[in-house]
Amino acid sequence: MVKMMERYDIAIVGSGPAGLSAAINSKIRNKNIIIFGNNDLSFKLIKAPKINNYLGFFNVSGNDLKNHFKEHIDSMGISITEERINNIYAMGDYFALMVNEKIYESKSVILATGIEYTRPIEGEEEFIGKGVGYCATCDAPLYKNKVVTIVGYNKEGEEDANYVSELASKVYYIPMYKGELSLNNNVEVIKDVPFRVEGNSKVEKLILKNREIETDGLFFLRNSLSPAQLVPGLLVENGHISVDRLMNTNILGCFAAGDCIGKPYQYIKAAGEGQIAALSAVSYLDSK
Amino acid sequence: MVKMMERYDIAIVGSGPAGLSAAINSKIRNKNIIIFGNNDLSFKLIKAPKINNYLGFFNVSGNDLKNHFKEHIDSMGISITEERINNIYAMGDYFALMVNEKIYESKSVILATGIEYTRPIEGEEEFIGKGVGYCATCDAPLYKNKVVTIVGYNKEGEEDANYVSELASKVYYIPMYKGELSLNNNVEVIKDVPFRVEGNSKVEKLILKNREIETDGLFFLRNSLSPAQLVPGLLVENGHISVDRLMNTNILGCFAAGDCIGKPYQYIKAAGEGQIAALSAVSYLDSK
Repeated sequence: MVKMMERYDIAIVGSGPAGLSAAINSKIRNKNIIIFGNNDLSFKLIKAPKINNYLGFFNVSGNDLKNHFKEHIDSMGISITEERINNIYAMGDYFALMVNEKIYESKSVILATGIEYTRPIEGEEEFIGKGVGYCATCDAPLYKNKVVTIVGYNKEGEEDANYVSELASKVYYIPMYKGELSLNNNVEVIKDVPFRVEGNSKVEKLILKNREIETDGLFFLRNSLSPAQLVPGLLVENGHISVDRLMNTNILGCFAAGDCIGKPYQYIKAAGEGQIAALSAVSYLDSK
Repeated sequence: MVKMMERYDIAIVGSGPAGLSAAINSKIRNKNIIIFGNNDLSFKLIKAPKINNYLGFFNVSGNDLKNHFKEHIDSMGISITEERINNIYAMGDYFALMVNEKIYESKSVILATGIEYTRPIEGEEEFIGKGVGYCATCDAPLYKNKVVTIVGYNKEGEEDANYVSELASKVYYIPMYKGELSLNNNVEVIKDVPFRVEGNSKVEKLILKNREIETDGLFFLRNSLSPAQLVPGLLVENGHISVDRLMNTNILGCFAAGDCIGKPYQYIKAAGEGQIAALSAVSYLDSK
């Protein structure tokens, strides 16, 4: 593990409207922040054809709005750290944010991870920790000389598959997206749709639409982790992170905003909540 | 009383960011709306020298932001009705919104009245309904041939004073602002600062900094009414309207958003809540 030396005041996970609004509001309050996400900011946003309901911008495309957001953060010297957080642990007076072999540290955390529309497949949740996982690189050492199956929802999954293939006896890669793949020769690609996990005390088989495969490990590398997978101990109700009106979660120093805390799934609602979360994080830091 | 004939789907009270965001979101959902407020939108907003924390607009003045908001509502054909609501009554399946001698009707209401920073003076709350009031024109008939004192916080108070002066035996007008006054000859202007209301079972005296006056009626015409004065029965805690996460108040069909529901007092927080309130009002109407 490589520990990143700096301890941030506020780590923001997610670069949609909630995360960005949290970032600008934290920065205005002179906090030392890091924001994890994507330089395209939000896939959902840039695909929106027409937006009329974000007060101040009439008749803009999602991409226009993204450009306004980008200009805003650029003007304030905020850049997005393009890393995918696997786990966040509350360590008492700080949080450890794990990115494969790296650890970032922050005194507080704002979760703005959006909402994952992809549901778990049948049996998946039952076998979490019993063969089913969400971070292949983290758990790779457990599968030395064993069979690992990776269900990848974006190109990042290919790197993970290559990494695991150096240890495992066999790696199956199931891409849930289109396009060219860059995989080591010893990774076997399966183009099929997984729909059930089977096993007894641990994972034994993945049932796909047209075939089934025997596997020891099974990783789902989705576009976003479910909040409870991301932050152990986080209170989640009906798939949304539980917060109070000031965006406090059940974990002291951990705040949340945007789609991940509940409906309506809308941009300015998320931006407003990101602002509240930032101001609450600032109060929390100032009170310490 | 003049009943305005149209019954609206959603009446929005307040033209700051919360009210405007509620208006555009309601209109997008094809609701028949009316929004009460001011064509300058928000006095607080237009006076803001520099705003950096509204995601999408960097380094703008409050007036710039107001112009963006104005353009947005103009593009959508939303105009502000410049009337001051005195009272809102829940009538079962609709709300009656009283404006002096007029009544507007609406199936639902969104309160976005902002926050009044002016505190009540000593004794004021104790004598509400016992001589102290907030709508001079409404209560004028009670003061025929009696002495009425009006504390006006803006020019609209002058009209009320003139109206009351046609019935009352004496009207004192205490302007809490600067500038020329347009008052009938029989209205006596007192330039002084009120600080205590005295009486036994009802108001008898208003104590000012430099003098005291005997009065039967005493009206405070502030820039905004307190929510509990505006909507009888509305649940208010610590000066803020109580709402749940979907902006429902304790009164069915009545929603609230923005500064009036609590801190932080910020524009995009208010706009986000206005959006939620609108979508909740739309759901409420659709479920009826």
